[in-house]
Amino acid sequence: MTSCISIENSIEEYLQKIATKNKRIRRHKMLIYGQIEQVREAVKAWKKEGKSVGFVPTMGYLHEGHKSLIDAARRENDKVVVSIFVNPMQFGPAEDLDSYPRDLNRDAKLCEDAGVDIIFHPEPEEMYADGFCSYVDMNGLTTELCGKTRPIHFRGVQTVVLKLFHIVTPDRAYFGQKDAQQLAVIKRMVKDLNVDTEIIGCPIIREEDGLAKSSRNTYLSEDERQAALVLSRSLKIGKQLVEDGEKSAKAIKDAITAEINKEPLARIDYVDVVDFETITPVDEIKGTTLVAIAVYIGKTRLIDNFIA
Amino acid sequence: MTSCISIENSIEEYLQKIATKNKRIRRHKMLIYGQIEQVREAVKAWKKEGKSVGFVPTMGYLHEGHKSLIDAARRENDKVVVSIFVNPMQFGPAEDLDSYPRDLNRDAKLCEDAGVDIIFHPEPEEMYADGFCSYVDMNGLTTELCGKTRPIHFRGVQTVVLKLFHIVTPDRAYFGQKDAQQLAVIKRMVKDLNVDTEIIGCPIIREEDGLAKSSRNTYLSEDERQAALVLSRSLKIGKQLVEDGEKSAKAIKDAITAEINKEPLARIDYVDVVDFETITPVDEIKGTTLVAIAVYIGKTRLIDNFIA
Repeated sequence: MTSCISIENSIEEYLQKIATKNKRIRRHKMLIYGQIEQVREAVKAWKKEGKSVGFVPTMGYLHEGHKSLIDAARRENDKVVVSIFVNPMQFGPAEDLDSYPRDLNRDAKLCEDAGVDIIFHPEPEEMYADGFCSYVDMNGLTTELCGKTRPIHFRGVQTVVLKLFHIVTPDRAYFGQKDAQQLAVIKRMVKDLNVDTEIIGCPIIREEDGLAKSSRNTYLSEDERQAALVLSRSLKIGKQLVEDGEKSAKAIKDAITAEINKEPLARIDYVDVVDFETITPVDEIKGTTLVAIAVYIGKTRLIDNFIA
Repeated sequence: MTSCISIENSIEEYLQKIATKNKRIRRHKMLIYGQIEQVREAVKAWKKEGKSVGFVPTMGYLHEGHKSLIDAARRENDKVVVSIFVNPMQFGPAEDLDSYPRDLNRDAKLCEDAGVDIIFHPEPEEMYADGFCSYVDMNGLTTELCGKTRPIHFRGVQTVVLKLFHIVTPDRAYFGQKDAQQLAVIKRMVKDLNVDTEIIGCPIIREEDGLAKSSRNTYLSEDERQAALVLSRSLKIGKQLVEDGEKSAKAIKDAITAEINKEPLARIDYVDVVDFETITPVDEIKGTTLVAIAVYIGKTRLIDNFIA
């Protein structure tokens, strides 16, 4: 039986070798850059070779939501750049800039496994040099929903995203539909300012129990984590109403609000029904309509939505 | 003598032929495009061939000031694009949008003679489609000088220039130093937003009698044209003071103001001394300082400046 074992071993070894080799082939060399010029140079070299570039801008602490964006970018482009930058300009003075979760090592592993070519991870000083004073903003789209309680948020988002677009010059950029207003704002900005990048919105990724994936879920205590299910549960009720033919925005909002109010740990920031393109309130479901909510669970503000 | 004349003629003919041939070689096919996509496609084809692109954004009614920008672009780049677009977004409600002079045929001839490859001449609807609401602006640089009486002007300039940069993707863009504040604003915007275009400022071009070239000079009556010389004359006095060692901004402003006030048809909008990079007022000439004036001659508002 010795020979037999020996053969088994050698086959195993052979398979191992093949697997390792394949892994090596798949496991390309991902680079992490902190300097704008490094990214620019790398992308210019790719473009000279005619390669297409997909881009996923993030604030890091990556989860499966981000991974779904990276996977889409990986499928549709020759090269993939992910930026990891907790952008000070989009946080209000009383918001969670300092406590926002960060874990570059874990993020880097997720990106490498997902086939990312470059992580751009700049320091704030690299992005906002001395004397910085420019911004991008819009009249409309940014005043409703999250814009009500986060008045400078979207200015910061637009500015940093346009800066990143100028650095990465992507053919396609990927944004999660969880931040639905952000997606609408970026689409509008790109159209208005003639940015030559296709904006691709990707579906919300949820935990098994329905909670939308978010880096901020990490703030939740065990009780709050349970209470947070009220967001997806209430939206499910709203969605069912729409599917049953309900057209009245008020009826849908009332049903969602009633469900959220049953949860003692929840405090509503907004429950709104808006046109998905213009982010202006509508009375009736018509065309592409966004039903969006923001709810404080304890001190943590969570958002969720569906498209009707 | 007949043969001699004949020889002379043939030499002349020969020279003529050479000249015509050279002219033909120089006289390439200039294209005038009205659609964003046409410009994008042409520039992309150039870039694939590794050609560099110089860009001169204008509002048309071109004069030798513009030509000096085009000439610089022609010298330093493989291809040259000139945009001719009277941008509604940078005019205030009481300003001269409707009466701003326009002459596309004359402009096209000047551009063709100067070796321009593409004129981009869009309609306002092409640049500002339905639902347009985005803008680029900055905190600082835009509040002093022309910003005081033209509060929305620089927002309009920044927005249209960034749009044009996204369409033309120039390696270098050329701006006249006559619009010194505009030049400073565009330089700041490009730096802040990481636009991959080099901004090149070019010297003021003047009429023989000293008046800075401007499309708006066409508004002046004969008397006003004469009175308008007070701008360059007063700045010359200011410049002489600086050259003689005067450091006090107040002394320089006072001397310029006194000279302008001698001219009955002139009414001062501003006489200011500012840091050329930050466009903030300074008390002393130090570093690169901008001495800038805006003066109404009758109803026509003219600007001029020098760098101290």
